[in-house]
Amino acid sequence: MEKEKEKEMGCVTLMHGCVIITMDGEQRVFKEGGIVIEKDQIKAIGHSQQILSDFSHVADQLIDLNGHILLPGLINTHVHSSQQLARGIADDVDLITWLHHRIWPYESNMTEQDSYLSTLLCGIELIHSGVTCFAEAGGQHVSGMATAVQLLGLRACLAQSTMDSGHGLPSSWSALTTHDCIQSQKDNYHKYNNTAQGRIRIWFGIRQIINSTHHLLLQTRDAAAQLKTGIHMHVAEIPYENQLVADVHKVNHGTVTYLDKIEFLQNNLLAAHSVWVDDNEAGVKVSHCPAAAMRMLGFAPVKEMLEAGICVSLGTDGAPSNNRMSIVDEMYLASLINKGREVYANGTTDPTALSAETILRMVTVNGAKSVLWDDELGSLEVGKKADIVVVNPSSWSMVPVHDCISNIVYCMRTENVVSVMCNGLWIMKNKKIINVDEEEVILKAKQASSELLKRAGIKLPTRMNVI
Amino acid sequence: MEKEKEKEMGCVTLMHGCVIITMDGEQRVFKEGGIVIEKDQIKAIGHSQQILSDFSHVADQLIDLNGHILLPGLINTHVHSSQQLARGIADDVDLITWLHHRIWPYESNMTEQDSYLSTLLCGIELIHSGVTCFAEAGGQHVSGMATAVQLLGLRACLAQSTMDSGHGLPSSWSALTTHDCIQSQKDNYHKYNNTAQGRIRIWFGIRQIINSTHHLLLQTRDAAAQLKTGIHMHVAEIPYENQLVADVHKVNHGTVTYLDKIEFLQNNLLAAHSVWVDDNEAGVKVSHCPAAAMRMLGFAPVKEMLEAGICVSLGTDGAPSNNRMSIVDEMYLASLINKGREVYANGTTDPTALSAETILRMVTVNGAKSVLWDDELGSLEVGKKADIVVVNPSSWSMVPVHDCISNIVYCMRTENVVSVMCNGLWIMKNKKIINVDEEEVILKAKQASSELLKRAGIKLPTRMNVI
Repeated sequence: MEKEKEKEMGCVTLMHGCVIITMDGEQRVFKEGGIVIEKDQIKAIGHSQQILSDFSHVADQLIDLNGHILLPGLINTHVHSSQQLARGIADDVDLITWLHHRIWPYESNMTEQDSYLSTLLCGIELIHSGVTCFAEAGGQHVSGMATAVQLLGLRACLAQSTMDSGHGLPSSWSALTTHDCIQSQKDNYHKYNNTAQGRIRIWFGIRQIINSTHHLLLQTRDAAAQLKTGIHMHVAEIPYENQLVADVHKVNHGTVTYLDKIEFLQNNLLAAHSVWVDDNEAGVKVSHCPAAAMRMLGFAPVKEMLEAGICVSLGTDGAPSNNRMSIVDEMYLASLINKGREVYANGTTDPTALSAETILRMVTVNGAKSVLWDDELGSLEVGKKADIVVVNPSSWSMVPVHDCISNIVYCMRTENVVSVMCNGLWIMKNKKIINVDEEEVILKAKQASSELLKRAGIKLPTRMNVI
Repeated sequence: MEKEKEKEMGCVTLMHGCVIITMDGEQRVFKEGGIVIEKDQIKAIGHSQQILSDFSHVADQLIDLNGHILLPGLINTHVHSSQQLARGIADDVDLITWLHHRIWPYESNMTEQDSYLSTLLCGIELIHSGVTCFAEAGGQHVSGMATAVQLLGLRACLAQSTMDSGHGLPSSWSALTTHDCIQSQKDNYHKYNNTAQGRIRIWFGIRQIINSTHHLLLQTRDAAAQLKTGIHMHVAEIPYENQLVADVHKVNHGTVTYLDKIEFLQNNLLAAHSVWVDDNEAGVKVSHCPAAAMRMLGFAPVKEMLEAGICVSLGTDGAPSNNRMSIVDEMYLASLINKGREVYANGTTDPTALSAETILRMVTVNGAKSVLWDDELGSLEVGKKADIVVVNPSSWSMVPVHDCISNIVYCMRTENVVSVMCNGLWIMKNKKIINVDEEEVILKAKQASSELLKRAGIKLPTRMNVI
């Protein structure tokens, strides 16, 4: 297996006869395109005929894609991979029940093996939805996550869930000092950063401001700067958060104002949700999670942020917040929700808001910038990493295709994603996940999940009249 | 083929070993259920063991469903089956461009064959999303629709797009008198109502109040009452509509007030969208189309309508408004959007609004009431029609299943819908559409669609830099 991979990695693959949406600086779309992959990189891209004529003789493998569409690997910038086993445990409940009685008991009872299985199951769903790179929002057992990501062949920026204060925390968490929080993340960094053929990077995590001391914020800021890595943090999720921060820290508005004051708003900050902001956020990157926002938080001012030049990308959030971990669905949702949101600003919806092109940028180039990896990811260009999605547009869910950009954003479903390449290797081919046995993972994950819920004492009320 | 079907129709099928969500009056969910189908009806339903012991000896066919979930056939109460060939022709444009420069030219240039192919293609998507019955919003060539519905094996309430006034109408439409409009619908009724083994019903259509004379409304009301059938109408879609109606007809609020005044708000009215209402609508049924509303119209007060006892069901609208014709996605959306909408009423979202059970009722029992067919449809009960969806919950998109009701609503994708039965016959089995060749339909539909756009003079601007 390993030998085969090395061989595959050394070989030159030429794919032709496909529509290629490059997402490069010139926004080129090849109607009849071809692409050459050597090792983990894109070696050439252009018109199919030209590519065939220039590279056929050096290619070890020629693949006729027969009208399929190629996209850069999609980037999901806010994922709780540890929460995949918690899908469905907190639906239709208020935020406090969600957090204190379901998610915290669940997460604080996870073993390393649970994290591993959860990330495997989550990764399978991500791959099926065309994701090649994700940013972990901060979860349990980075070691388990890293093993899963390594095995699946995905790319990820992993982070630990980090809190050093706050009410109602499970005892295993509240025992942690600020020093513990920083040290374990530094350890993770040294152990896992740049592993898995460079596919794994380690970031710092801040769960949320309400659970962070002033020291934790400052030390995180400095440690991340020193190690030249990113920080992933939930920012301005609910009005209560802003109110609390304003009261405690005596600032005008809330989280963003306070973070600005302590010079936390740097280029390496990936702020998730940012629903309740009223200021520009400079070089900060924002992950907009439409489904989770609609359900739990509110409507983020995405149009305004984009107009202000803020780099906004898309995320799915975690399975108990969404519950579909599909960036394909989030594209559709981001457009709908932000067209609809205009009603409240202007009295009518704006069907022109957040166009298909904008949405596609959010999940590719903006995604790459958000994970601080745009030198190698986000577009199909010579020299960039070969992270590629192959879409079949000829099925009942997408035809007729009069406008392939718009059909990709508004019609495509996970069903249309047929193959996915990451770092020059296929990680899904013809809908089959390559590196793990999907059914085996599902079986193990179901079992681990039931046991975890029992251990955590989480009992769900029965809906309807089950007999 | 026909003989085989007759044989199939005469036989007794017993399915066992499945979760059955009955949606009956007692909200029974059989954890390990069984169901017996004879001809087009449900003969028995209960615990798997009991059903096996009572009916095995009379069953011609025993099917072990191995943990799959059975649901009543889903009902999509607002579908423009004529618009399927127009998917992607009007994305990211304002409402006037959408209507006057894309949809009207498209629809007014349709041939009967186009309508037939469009309904076939649309029907394939509906079946893949678990729909067994749909209410046509009013389109072109009912004859073409009826042939397609008959062939696919679906159930439908078909209606003609009807307008007898208004600015900017294509000439072939503006030439029609009120009498023409009523007469052609009566003809359709006599020709197609109760055909296709009773699966087709013919309704009256009103496109919208802006394109209807007072006479058309009154004659439609009376003709539908006389023939004991339904009326499908777009109601209160945009603020402009209400304003215009208020000005012209000197009523307080708008469309709903005016329709009430002329006694149009009867039990047989299926009102689509109803975004801009501020009154209760008595016995009227409302079709809520979350995706189309978000994109084009606004946020309907669904929670308020449900609390006021109004029968609200779900619809996809047409492919150029949505663009996914998936009632499965609309379930997810309806919940998210209406949880989110609470922000504007109360300052925070309400994650408990529109629970999974409520959403499931909207696409089953409320759907059946909306299409005036709840004596035979909407739940799995003895004596009702055998319209059934088989869901496989054991894939990466739905596991783990801690709460099957919530996972059906929030996680299920069209990928999980494996088989669909309508009127006692399988119309999709293991994801294969039974009665038409999917690929052939797709091929023909693509071609017809390109030709139609040319004929209608519709040219789409190019996005990005296509080379």
